[in-house]
Amino acid sequence: MTDSTPSAAEDLAERVRAGELRFHELEDHTDADTATAARRLLVEEQSDASLDVVGDYGFPAERADPNIENMVGAVQVPMGVAGPVRIRGGRLDGERYLPLATTEGALLASVNRGCSVLNDAGGANVRILKSGMTRAPVFRVADVVEAEALVEWVRDNRDALREAAEETTNHGELLDVTPYVVGNSVHLRFRYDTKDAMGMNMVTIATRAACELVEDETDASLVALSGNLCTDKKPAAINAVEGRGRSVTTDVTIPREVVEDRLHTTPEAVAELNTRKNLVGSAKAASLGFNAHVANVVAAMFLATGQDEAQVVEGANAITTAEVQDGDLYVSISIASLEVGTVGGGTKLPTQAEGLDVLGVRGGGDPAGSNADALAEAIAVGSLAGELSLLSALASRHLSSAHAELGR
Amino acid sequence: MTDSTPSAAEDLAERVRAGELRFHELEDHTDADTATAARRLLVEEQSDASLDVVGDYGFPAERADPNIENMVGAVQVPMGVAGPVRIRGGRLDGERYLPLATTEGALLASVNRGCSVLNDAGGANVRILKSGMTRAPVFRVADVVEAEALVEWVRDNRDALREAAEETTNHGELLDVTPYVVGNSVHLRFRYDTKDAMGMNMVTIATRAACELVEDETDASLVALSGNLCTDKKPAAINAVEGRGRSVTTDVTIPREVVEDRLHTTPEAVAELNTRKNLVGSAKAASLGFNAHVANVVAAMFLATGQDEAQVVEGANAITTAEVQDGDLYVSISIASLEVGTVGGGTKLPTQAEGLDVLGVRGGGDPAGSNADALAEAIAVGSLAGELSLLSALASRHLSSAHAELGR
Amino acid sequence: MTDSTPSAAEDLAERVRAGELRFHELEDHTDADTATAARRLLVEEQSDASLDVVGDYGFPAERADPNIENMVGAVQVPMGVAGPVRIRGGRLDGERYLPLATTEGALLASVNRGCSVLNDAGGANVRILKSGMTRAPVFRVADVVEAEALVEWVRDNRDALREAAEETTNHGELLDVTPYVVGNSVHLRFRYDTKDAMGMNMVTIATRAACELVEDETDASLVALSGNLCTDKKPAAINAVEGRGRSVTTDVTIPREVVEDRLHTTPEAVAELNTRKNLVGSAKAASLGFNAHVANVVAAMFLATGQDEAQVVEGANAITTAEVQDGDLYVSISIASLEVGTVGGGTKLPTQAEGLDVLGVRGGGDPAGSNADALAEAIAVGSLAGELSLLSALASRHLSSAHAELGR
Amino acid sequence: MTDSTPSAAEDLAERVRAGELRFHELEDHTDADTATAARRLLVEEQSDASLDVVGDYGFPAERADPNIENMVGAVQVPMGVAGPVRIRGGRLDGERYLPLATTEGALLASVNRGCSVLNDAGGANVRILKSGMTRAPVFRVADVVEAEALVEWVRDNRDALREAAEETTNHGELLDVTPYVVGNSVHLRFRYDTKDAMGMNMVTIATRAACELVEDETDASLVALSGNLCTDKKPAAINAVEGRGRSVTTDVTIPREVVEDRLHTTPEAVAELNTRKNLVGSAKAASLGFNAHVANVVAAMFLATGQDEAQVVEGANAITTAEVQDGDLYVSISIASLEVGTVGGGTKLPTQAEGLDVLGVRGGGDPAGSNADALAEAIAVGSLAGELSLLSALASRHLSSAHAELGR
Repeated sequence: MTDSTPSAAEDLAERVRAGELRFHELEDHTDADTATAARRLLVEEQSDASLDVVGDYGFPAERADPNIENMVGAVQVPMGVAGPVRIRGGRLDGERYLPLATTEGALLASVNRGCSVLNDAGGANVRILKSGMTRAPVFRVADVVEAEALVEWVRDNRDALREAAEETTNHGELLDVTPYVVGNSVHLRFRYDTKDAMGMNMVTIATRAACELVEDETDASLVALSGNLCTDKKPAAINAVEGRGRSVTTDVTIPREVVEDRLHTTPEAVAELNTRKNLVGSAKAASLGFNAHVANVVAAMFLATGQDEAQVVEGANAITTAEVQDGDLYVSISIASLEVGTVGGGTKLPTQAEGLDVLGVRGGGDPAGSNADALAEAIAVGSLAGELSLLSALASRHLSSAHAELGR
Repeated sequence: MTDSTPSAAEDLAERVRAGELRFHELEDHTDADTATAARRLLVEEQSDASLDVVGDYGFPAERADPNIENMVGAVQVPMGVAGPVRIRGGRLDGERYLPLATTEGALLASVNRGCSVLNDAGGANVRILKSGMTRAPVFRVADVVEAEALVEWVRDNRDALREAAEETTNHGELLDVTPYVVGNSVHLRFRYDTKDAMGMNMVTIATRAACELVEDETDASLVALSGNLCTDKKPAAINAVEGRGRSVTTDVTIPREVVEDRLHTTPEAVAELNTRKNLVGSAKAASLGFNAHVANVVAAMFLATGQDEAQVVEGANAITTAEVQDGDLYVSISIASLEVGTVGGGTKLPTQAEGLDVLGVRGGGDPAGSNADALAEAIAVGSLAGELSLLSALASRHLSSAHAELGR
Repeated sequence: MTDSTPSAAEDLAERVRAGELRFHELEDHTDADTATAARRLLVEEQSDASLDVVGDYGFPAERADPNIENMVGAVQVPMGVAGPVRIRGGRLDGERYLPLATTEGALLASVNRGCSVLNDAGGANVRILKSGMTRAPVFRVADVVEAEALVEWVRDNRDALREAAEETTNHGELLDVTPYVVGNSVHLRFRYDTKDAMGMNMVTIATRAACELVEDETDASLVALSGNLCTDKKPAAINAVEGRGRSVTTDVTIPREVVEDRLHTTPEAVAELNTRKNLVGSAKAASLGFNAHVANVVAAMFLATGQDEAQVVEGANAITTAEVQDGDLYVSISIASLEVGTVGGGTKLPTQAEGLDVLGVRGGGDPAGSNADALAEAIAVGSLAGELSLLSALASRHLSSAHAELGR
Repeated sequence: MTDSTPSAAEDLAERVRAGELRFHELEDHTDADTATAARRLLVEEQSDASLDVVGDYGFPAERADPNIENMVGAVQVPMGVAGPVRIRGGRLDGERYLPLATTEGALLASVNRGCSVLNDAGGANVRILKSGMTRAPVFRVADVVEAEALVEWVRDNRDALREAAEETTNHGELLDVTPYVVGNSVHLRFRYDTKDAMGMNMVTIATRAACELVEDETDASLVALSGNLCTDKKPAAINAVEGRGRSVTTDVTIPREVVEDRLHTTPEAVAELNTRKNLVGSAKAASLGFNAHVANVVAAMFLATGQDEAQVVEGANAITTAEVQDGDLYVSISIASLEVGTVGGGTKLPTQAEGLDVLGVRGGGDPAGSNADALAEAIAVGSLAGELSLLSALASRHLSSAHAELGR
């Protein structure tokens, strides 16, 4: 909601129409809310749209200053909670409501049902098995002889690279640097511990410093701070295989009677369905995602907690397994590249900070990194709840009925 | 914002605490806003969080009824606009502001700069070259002999399948059915024209009807309505190769002087960087995304227009090319699987509908499908603006400086 | 073995040393065997190698004239047979010895054991479920507007393209043409029925003719007759998903007692191992090959029957499934892109023709294509035998012992 | 060619027909050549084939004893040489003839032309930038908690694992062990320096020993010695990204006049073609092979030097780049996973050993590993010659003409 007066916004809009001010510079001439209101007027004129609800946001516009430019307001996405669910994590041990923001009807209900089944099974195990945010600049060298020299230089100068990189950050730690050579392009994949930050900005700045050292000390020439071996916001096997952000695995064994009574199916049916759909089907599709709908939960929890929505791409690199164990149903999800943070980015925005509070993971953790770890664990368990529920629904054949009833 | 009185919500919460009501059934006992308020109280108690801003949403909660369950409020994501940009599309021909909702600082400014450069080049071409939403159930057969029989039956009964499928929908049209066999699993990929709907729900219901026919007429047994060859919300080569939703391509030729004056780099530098990063780098990463950050724009425009955020995954299947042509810079993006709609799903929510209005594409188009086509074209052009801007920034080496200045 | 006299070869070598003749032109001046002998002399001098056994080949060198240039002799690879095995194919119904040429100790024994188990189960089913050899030229167009025009032209001129293509061949039939657009590159994937020929040469010539029509009638310009969407001799999802050459599936159900008595393991152990290794392991490796060692059998049977060894690459695109059915073991293999022929290429060479004779599939079949179909079926069944044997060996843990005993 | 007498073979065959001897046990009752001859008689009867030329092999059958079972003779594949070509490698510095065995007409001529052009450019650079043969067993654990424990145990017990593994081998060295977790499956990728051996057998035996230690010391249970993360003989991104065997890169800068005079095209045309075909085309095909026909040369040189033909699959994981540099043409190939050896396997067979002699790399090198390094370098340079030649032919549009003239 805005504190700006209509007339101040109209005056500002008029000055833009008159060519006195530029559309993106309005914040230099007034408060953020008035600038935002003025922009709405201009956009409404051009497009014949009304932006009334977009303009009815619930925080001072200047709070969004680090997050957006040319602001006109806010989009409002319904938020719900699933659970509480029992999480038996390496970081997060206890019951939590899971906040999800989505526009996909039936998703919350589905995750909620899964959470309830997880609870009946005593909760879900979850562990982070690898961690590190990457940035991979690409250098041009003269030829493969020079490429070899660069690879050797990197091997011999890891300490110097670490020092250069870490000088730019209070929290980040350079874990390793891996070279990949393609002809006269040399990619160096820097991997960092970024603690509670998702860390893309931190690693970009740190890597830039390291690149300066490379350029100073070798014949290589930096082409781009990111050469796509990072890989950020693109589906890529390097992330699915080696991980990026947190690699997190969660599992549960559900007693047969719970499967039958609560999910209206059998361990055998779920296991067969998982094999034909998530393993064989994804294999035939040449997919990097061997799961049913992990991205749904990742996207909804990302949105509710201020994560980067474009990184849902990497969050979909997940493998779901299901098997019958002594008559019960074992189900697991392993998400290779879940990129999350509890500081920086969208996490400071008012509703998103409240979303983090629901999980008890807002801001820096103690020890550093523990809040982001806990967030990753919660998202993985939410994904497990969602998988369980959808696989069971499919196994008992009422997927589209469920949707139909819920009116999507 | 809610119309509920605090005491009514507190009464309701008390009844949940007392075990009289269930958390997810509150809407059965009161209006949607009061139910939502009661849930906030309960979640706040459990988590020690305050949900004040989450509860300060700008529309009647019942508007979100088809989109969410267990609602506690709404997340608010800053929305800005880039442009206006000149779009020379097959559907959308004219200047448009592009609405983006994001928490990533610098993104709006970057796309905005790109739009301005596109305008200087006379606007961007954009065409939809393939279209169709898919759903691929998986059937179990006895063996490969029966698999062959099913494949032949499908080949011989396309009309009957079409009739069964289309009986369930007023708008959808079944375009084709492609069988894929893996041992005794037979996947049938149904592809539909879903007009202005993104269409997942429509094709799920239609395919269920077709599956009933398959089961009635053959020995095959349905295992799951989705066998992952669709492929929905997972990175998969089948989408990158064959497309899903809209396959859309956009390009522009930017005069050398514009590249030099506005982007502070050269066509040669951008082309080289694109090859080393987006082509060679992505090749080495074994990626399905040969671009810089198309997912950023897709995610932000999806959010601003009520699309399914989990489908950003497929939206990242994009190839960016750049080459020097007679001294000028030619740049293109081809997004293989952009899944969008202007009716249904999140498009009816108030802020999202306003986002669609900014582009002039809310609701059903005339002819049917033209609004969703136009939306796909706008997103592609926004992505082109974003690519141009980031590639140029990298080529002139100030990526992280830009971030630093913008305070991320 | 050569009929050339040593002195004639020495004379010829001397003329090369003297610069009178060029190394690759010797066949113009003498018979093929003498030319080959002369080259051996020259290579031996340069390298200090002896090429005695290489020169001791068992056929007139001129027989190899269509297959090689700069011939110096022949490499000899041990050939063995496995079986006979009972094949229940769409084309090949009966018992066959399978010829394999390999240098990998234990492979023949392994396949042989598998064949014996297949026989105990009554033989293996096998069917070809899709067929077609592809060639995909790439064209340059001005922009996406012209790309759209080309796609439409192709859609409207399929008959003319077919006519142009088929004029160049007596046997080939153009099945379809699928366009793929990436910016200003338009790839057209031509798919042909090439009958008993593997067909790469046939489809290259036919597609060249079709490309001339495209260039005559549109503004597109041919860049390369192959633009890598074919995809020939590279691992590519397009082949794994859509197939190339023959897509062939084979399966068998092995009674529990046979698994226990002959393979010394259980259906449950094989099924679990297949899931963890071939499905989950390959998923995590981001592989296109979800099998244990299909390429071993494909390579060895390719070598024994004169196929193109570089196309083993595509032959590895195979998915193996294993499950317990009523206590018995069901196993299947689906090879997506098996490119084989019984005419042309290496099939006319003496030992390779004898290899084809072992299977009874030398030369053109009746109806046309049936011999190549039968060869594909035999290779698939051989692969099934190999998978069964290796999976069982792993399940009973004696993989490396087996190797050790066999002295590799 | 065999020394066995016809009557001895016939007697043996008769005893098999009579059920006194088993087909695969003949070597226990006679010399290898007679056993082979007897088997030919039996196969000829069953199949109506003549195996005369297959039986006319040029070495004592017992030489093939470690390489095959159920031997019936040998397949003969024409061998030619290309070059000599100037190689500027890390290991191999000088001129070499390249031996290739193939049945694909025009391939030798093509590589030969490429070699000649490489020589005109002063030879090709080539370097091995990473090296290591892998084997990745898969273990079953109870759940993710136990998975975490195993990952930590491996981290803490690298020395013990190394000791256990290296006890089984005189030459191999364990370089590292990388864990990958998917639910309750834990894959450990062991990477070894196997010196001059391709090493699959060595690493299998060594890893088995290490696995015994894992099973003794932890709760994990070995499921299979190979869990497909190795990845052997399947197309897999893990190999394309991280390498397997040798990762080798070669390049050359060809003066413009050489491109124009010898290749009848221009640097610009080759660079454009490479981008549209090898980069963009392969991207759109979702390929792991961004090259034209590297597998052709790998397959032919593998065959000529006794390598494992099924590993051509991994050899196709290659990226070709081409760019114009100061008017000249720079071309490179980077093969990620080239698995070669100069000892063991097929390298001891007579013709294959002669093939290695042509390159001067037979047997163990000094230092250990140098011969296999040199072989990898030679194959990479041969591939570069082949790429150059084919890309140029395509660029000057006479691919199918060339084939036509050569009579394929």
